[in-house]
Amino acid sequence: MILILKSGVSEDQVSHVIDRVESLGFQAHLSRGTYRTIVGIIGDESRLAPESLRAIPGVSEVIPVLPPYKLASLEAHGEPSIVDVGGVKVGGGKLLLIAGPCSVEDPERMDRIARAVRDAGANMFRGGAFKPRTSPYAFQGLGEEGLKILREIGDRYGMPVVTEVTDPRNVELVAQYADMIQIGARNMQNFALLTEVGNARRPVLLKRGMSATINDLLMSAEYILSRGNSSVVLCERGVKGFDSCTRNLFDVAAVPVVKGLSHLPIIVDPSHATGRPDLIAPCAMAGLAAGADGVHVEVHDCPEEAKSDGPQALLPNQYADLVRQLRQLATLLRKQISPLPGVTV
Amino acid sequence: MILILKSGVSEDQVSHVIDRVESLGFQAHLSRGTYRTIVGIIGDESRLAPESLRAIPGVSEVIPVLPPYKLASLEAHGEPSIVDVGGVKVGGGKLLLIAGPCSVEDPERMDRIARAVRDAGANMFRGGAFKPRTSPYAFQGLGEEGLKILREIGDRYGMPVVTEVTDPRNVELVAQYADMIQIGARNMQNFALLTEVGNARRPVLLKRGMSATINDLLMSAEYILSRGNSSVVLCERGVKGFDSCTRNLFDVAAVPVVKGLSHLPIIVDPSHATGRPDLIAPCAMAGLAAGADGVHVEVHDCPEEAKSDGPQALLPNQYADLVRQLRQLATLLRKQISPLPGVTV
Amino acid sequence: MILILKSGVSEDQVSHVIDRVESLGFQAHLSRGTYRTIVGIIGDESRLAPESLRAIPGVSEVIPVLPPYKLASLEAHGEPSIVDVGGVKVGGGKLLLIAGPCSVEDPERMDRIARAVRDAGANMFRGGAFKPRTSPYAFQGLGEEGLKILREIGDRYGMPVVTEVTDPRNVELVAQYADMIQIGARNMQNFALLTEVGNARRPVLLKRGMSATINDLLMSAEYILSRGNSSVVLCERGVKGFDSCTRNLFDVAAVPVVKGLSHLPIIVDPSHATGRPDLIAPCAMAGLAAGADGVHVEVHDCPEEAKSDGPQALLPNQYADLVRQLRQLATLLRKQISPLPGVTV
Amino acid sequence: MILILKSGVSEDQVSHVIDRVESLGFQAHLSRGTYRTIVGIIGDESRLAPESLRAIPGVSEVIPVLPPYKLASLEAHGEPSIVDVGGVKVGGGKLLLIAGPCSVEDPERMDRIARAVRDAGANMFRGGAFKPRTSPYAFQGLGEEGLKILREIGDRYGMPVVTEVTDPRNVELVAQYADMIQIGARNMQNFALLTEVGNARRPVLLKRGMSATINDLLMSAEYILSRGNSSVVLCERGVKGFDSCTRNLFDVAAVPVVKGLSHLPIIVDPSHATGRPDLIAPCAMAGLAAGADGVHVEVHDCPEEAKSDGPQALLPNQYADLVRQLRQLATLLRKQISPLPGVTV
Repeated sequence: MILILKSGVSEDQVSHVIDRVESLGFQAHLSRGTYRTIVGIIGDESRLAPESLRAIPGVSEVIPVLPPYKLASLEAHGEPSIVDVGGVKVGGGKLLLIAGPCSVEDPERMDRIARAVRDAGANMFRGGAFKPRTSPYAFQGLGEEGLKILREIGDRYGMPVVTEVTDPRNVELVAQYADMIQIGARNMQNFALLTEVGNARRPVLLKRGMSATINDLLMSAEYILSRGNSSVVLCERGVKGFDSCTRNLFDVAAVPVVKGLSHLPIIVDPSHATGRPDLIAPCAMAGLAAGADGVHVEVHDCPEEAKSDGPQALLPNQYADLVRQLRQLATLLRKQISPLPGVTV
Repeated sequence: MILILKSGVSEDQVSHVIDRVESLGFQAHLSRGTYRTIVGIIGDESRLAPESLRAIPGVSEVIPVLPPYKLASLEAHGEPSIVDVGGVKVGGGKLLLIAGPCSVEDPERMDRIARAVRDAGANMFRGGAFKPRTSPYAFQGLGEEGLKILREIGDRYGMPVVTEVTDPRNVELVAQYADMIQIGARNMQNFALLTEVGNARRPVLLKRGMSATINDLLMSAEYILSRGNSSVVLCERGVKGFDSCTRNLFDVAAVPVVKGLSHLPIIVDPSHATGRPDLIAPCAMAGLAAGADGVHVEVHDCPEEAKSDGPQALLPNQYADLVRQLRQLATLLRKQISPLPGVTV
Repeated sequence: MILILKSGVSEDQVSHVIDRVESLGFQAHLSRGTYRTIVGIIGDESRLAPESLRAIPGVSEVIPVLPPYKLASLEAHGEPSIVDVGGVKVGGGKLLLIAGPCSVEDPERMDRIARAVRDAGANMFRGGAFKPRTSPYAFQGLGEEGLKILREIGDRYGMPVVTEVTDPRNVELVAQYADMIQIGARNMQNFALLTEVGNARRPVLLKRGMSATINDLLMSAEYILSRGNSSVVLCERGVKGFDSCTRNLFDVAAVPVVKGLSHLPIIVDPSHATGRPDLIAPCAMAGLAAGADGVHVEVHDCPEEAKSDGPQALLPNQYADLVRQLRQLATLLRKQISPLPGVTV
Repeated sequence: MILILKSGVSEDQVSHVIDRVESLGFQAHLSRGTYRTIVGIIGDESRLAPESLRAIPGVSEVIPVLPPYKLASLEAHGEPSIVDVGGVKVGGGKLLLIAGPCSVEDPERMDRIARAVRDAGANMFRGGAFKPRTSPYAFQGLGEEGLKILREIGDRYGMPVVTEVTDPRNVELVAQYADMIQIGARNMQNFALLTEVGNARRPVLLKRGMSATINDLLMSAEYILSRGNSSVVLCERGVKGFDSCTRNLFDVAAVPVVKGLSHLPIIVDPSHATGRPDLIAPCAMAGLAAGADGVHVEVHDCPEEAKSDGPQALLPNQYADLVRQLRQLATLLRKQISPLPGVTV
């Protein structure tokens, strides 16, 4: 780390800064510029908290030179990871196409939607059994009943399934039914939940929080990785913006930014990012073009009857059109939609 | 609610919209303007999900005319609430002054800080035993050991204590030791946690999330209230901003906005809002001047040794200076710092 | 427009609202719901200012049902426009590829860069002669000297040229030399400048401001269109965001949002949107995939010597690689990079 | 400045960085840490452009150690400035209270409002003659006619007047009539306008742009100061936020942040910051409590008839109530509302 001292710092303060750095077991390297004095700290930066250094009198700024995450870092890992979710590969040129309704609803509807999205080319089915809803009066999901429906559908169509967990007490239960566990945007910094999911032996889909920086996102991934679970897939799904014409602001540049910093795959979710069905296809294409490892889209066969989030779903035939376009784009980018397990391409 | 239909909507679509509204048990009131057709929905709006209405073909916009919260609403409640926390009143002209270190540390230091802030005029002591940290490698708090220290300090100085809970499994434990349970900004939409805290019989300090609208904040309060816990105090602690010269963007206008919408007391936290000790006093004063029911400030006797968040703490003597100013301002506003229980003013 | 009245509004206030609406020459259509009274205003909404309606006592909200722009509206215009800039077509499947350095520099360097980007496939050359710089001490551009260099280069290589104007007094001068006049992000709401550019007989490249909504952008276009200049091309170049890892936040969804509202072409500028050379190619591809009518990229042959904004430029060979990718994507999308005038494809 | 080199930088790249720094006339001070190499640049940083340094191969980050403004800096100036506007002092404990309608309207109304705000205690009258309107179809102000009305009112009541200029061609004209020239938020980075205003011999009220950092604001002040005009008063009037319940997000912490960086006075404008009359008084009080040197409030005697921005105006009697509160708060803060010229306090 580098400490930039305040202008007009006294010699006593400089000495105290150096003492403090050395007392923490590091070497201090002093550099007096024309206007400011700078202290370089030599040693393993990961053992230092920038905030406590910033509280030393005379210190103006603390500048880390290393990212605060290690296991999530591309530099440490060397090459992009490929994550296997129930036989479907994500990363390294293999694309994940997740589709399904916002909430798990009745089995007949689930069956219809699942068959449609599988036929369209999706390789993972989604549906929420535990729904984080801003209103306590809104539909909260079918709970374990929903998990059972999801599992049956997954088995029937040979597709891995992903569903959200919102409570650390439910992680084990969800892990029994789902091939992949989703951490939603509102829980990206729910550290108790991240820790439990890190202990589970299931791949994790970690969605970026609405006000999370890329660094925050990678630190949340680090929580999961540091518990021994190395199968983490990130998801950009829009951040908070000032223009109400979209639900969130789709930060497509997050995809190449993450690719430059981390080995973890990252997919995009244009349904939540925009909240508008007319924007899903263009933003899905944009995400793939920017380098994403997959696309997450909500699909419902009658959005006006959906138990939640109807307006951000595509109809099955619209989804099929989108997958045709995505497949062509994948070919141009020398990537491939990952085949379902047991399917020969 | 009001449905604004798309321009060029067909008669069939209009009929379908009306059928749909009526099938949900509401009356539809059609109004054809020069350019657009509008459908007013007459009945108990709280039973309707705007999102499913927006998914009906031909509907362009859905405009609610009532707030989605009821228990948190000022209109429903009639007058501002006064919340009692261990004998200290908040709201209705009574001010809450919470002070203490970010984390609970060793008992000697806690004792020194607690005595100092009580002597300065604080009426509640704070300290984190379970710390939500962005890094899995950072100090995570002393856990139950910390709760015990906090309780002892509170009893020794006759001050109620507040501490954060981050895991629904710990709510009962925390409620055994603390007079008030804090929900931190990152957990404002952790609905499992809100539900548990709603079941607890302890007052709750609910901090606004970094990307939460006022409406989101009041909906989270509604979660707690709807479980039967009516002692909720809100806290503005800064939202995500674009200027890195402060840690967050202190949204002081949130105070009068909340006062116009809700009966719940609201305090401000200039420590987290700004992340800079030089800004704490001016922002604390601003919050009180804007109508806040109290101020939450981190205080530490040696910020460079703090286990977490040192740079946003005041020294005890700085805190005493601030309370002197706050007291004068309170008098001007015809308010009063709430006395400690058993203390005669 | 629709007026939602406050809950508890008096009969006198309702009468006053209706009188006021009628005195402005409109019909009022009253609708009393379960909780709120609503007044629909029937007539030509464009003659009404929402703000003065909102100031009528008893009015809670004013909801426009028409967009405030007319000439920029897709609905009014019927189909997407194709803009001709010095023989290069933009819109309707024809793509604009603008490339060149941030500032016009010495003629030799300009010549080298222009030849390189033309050979790579760009169909418009750019360079700033009047630079809006945040610092009064930074290089402010070569002025008319720069315009001359730009014109010579354009003529030599048969490419139309675009350059920014920052002062209404310079519009005529710039229009003498440039084929297209750029309004930069910081001047998007410089209405004196928009008016002058609206009077000029040159196509305009209008960049979105950093805190401008799509509605604001289209209103600024309306200023230009309302003066009789119908050749306006919009440009998304990033809005203000909270994550400092990119210079701005590239709002790729703005492209399909604009396409749904306006007939005007829209291009993207990943150089300014991200400020990082490694993100330019992925974001350019994303923009095209989302439906943009072109891409604006800064290119410099020695970024460390650039007079301004070096770090957001591609090297000529990197630009050539990008155009190869863009061309393939254009084919997939059934679009075409617009040929230079006089060039047979 | 400090250059942090990329991890894995080659020796050739390090040499090239040092050569480049030295060729620019600076000394390079090399420091090799455990993970990164750092180059300190010794010399007059103000002659260096961070962006061109960031474009040198091998450079990862460029960290300035001095602010980029000099004339606006508190450090350079030593103590807070007091600006004199037509005999009214601002700064150093003297408060400026600007009040008046958004636009200059008919002389009778102006007279009524001016008398009312003067009697309430305002010491400067405002009104727009050239209005920056987002719609080309909205009322654009009375132009020179409005300036004349404003001047007459100012003379009649012995109050200095302030009005906005939006076009560099009008600066001289406005300076003939007004005591203070306002640069509005949308023009904060209209550098042509800043330069002209810097040449004028009138005090300037510089409003912060909606997406401007404090650094951006001070750089715009530097433009004016660098032309020789040292009478600049800053104004915080809200930045772009994500919650539509206020028009902008009032950044009250900007006041003490500016106080720590610059000698220039700063006032607050709660009318534009919030856009809601019920929030003006609490936010005005908050601004003063945070250390502002004055308050700018829109006042109109019939907001529903206002030519612009009616809903953010106070009625004259509401304004008088607010000034009573502000006066008490000023006394508590040991400050004083600056008397009108010729008035003995």
